[in-house]
Amino acid sequence: MTYLTEKTISTESIFTGKVISLQVDTVTLPNGNESKRELVKHPGAVAVIAVTDEGKLVLVNQFRKPLEKAILEIPAGKIDPGEAPIKTAARELKEETGYTAKELELVTSFYTSPGFADEIIYIYEAKGLLQGKASPDADEFVEVTEVTLEQAQALVNDQTIHDAKTAYAVMYLLLKQAQAK
Amino acid sequence: MTYLTEKTISTESIFTGKVISLQVDTVTLPNGNESKRELVKHPGAVAVIAVTDEGKLVLVNQFRKPLEKAILEIPAGKIDPGEAPIKTAARELKEETGYTAKELELVTSFYTSPGFADEIIYIYEAKGLLQGKASPDADEFVEVTEVTLEQAQALVNDQTIHDAKTAYAVMYLLLKQAQAK
Repeated sequence: MTYLTEKTISTESIFTGKVISLQVDTVTLPNGNESKRELVKHPGAVAVIAVTDEGKLVLVNQFRKPLEKAILEIPAGKIDPGEAPIKTAARELKEETGYTAKELELVTSFYTSPGFADEIIYIYEAKGLLQGKASPDADEFVEVTEVTLEQAQALVNDQTIHDAKTAYAVMYLLLKQAQAK
Repeated sequence: MTYLTEKTISTESIFTGKVISLQVDTVTLPNGNESKRELVKHPGAVAVIAVTDEGKLVLVNQFRKPLEKAILEIPAGKIDPGEAPIKTAARELKEETGYTAKELELVTSFYTSPGFADEIIYIYEAKGLLQGKASPDADEFVEVTEVTLEQAQALVNDQTIHDAKTAYAVMYLLLKQAQAK
């Protein structure tokens, strides 16, 4: 695949923030031409597929400033510096929903927007949920809701569930259900 | 949900590029505290689930500068200003793979990274593929490959397929197959 590679000539740092940073790289393309690449660096994230003993999927409603609206998502959060993703998963699940899991199993991971960002998200499935008290960060506002898989599918269909990781989670549970039949 | 809303106090434009722009908003949180939000604006994208008459999924291998490597993805691309997503789907499928589709059906859409970006991606399924000659942009380098659904699943499992839209596409086809049984 080396013939596809873009070589970096120079890197210009544009912005370093609390969550993301932005740089513009000048690259040499495989045909020798020069081009610019706008790159967002992100620390990575985790998300948790948590289904209660009653078979309900745990979702959180959260305001997302880039979208100027609240959307329903599976519990998720950014990885703290040096934190193992499974620890982030346990932490975010507890903070946002109050649940702790006896076991957290890695389902998969994927890049969310490989065209412009390096964000990777690790998807965990929680097994053996124990209810507890949510403890969101002081400046974090989330509302927990629990829905059946059928309700979740309807929410995907009407796009109330409208983000990649949550759409993936619903599909994952539907496939598991279909394969168990 | 208005109690979850973050109100914008001010917006600082940091960068306007070819693909993305970056701004930092100062907001009032529901508890009255102030916070900063780092927001990436993106024009939106489409991706196409294209399965040949032989039952093979069409993938493209493309260097992704944010990841510093080439990855396998379903054909995809950015929406041009004012372009209808279905036109983008037809254009990108043709440019990257040479295929044209008799029909392009919208499967779903989702935000890829709602925590920091407004990128939305529309996923289309191509029906009735007709082979033709690929016509990538002068500075676009992609390698087309076609795999069976079983091979695609193996590529997800070993994370050669490692991005959200492509993982979703494979899951979508697996669910369709399971439900048809």
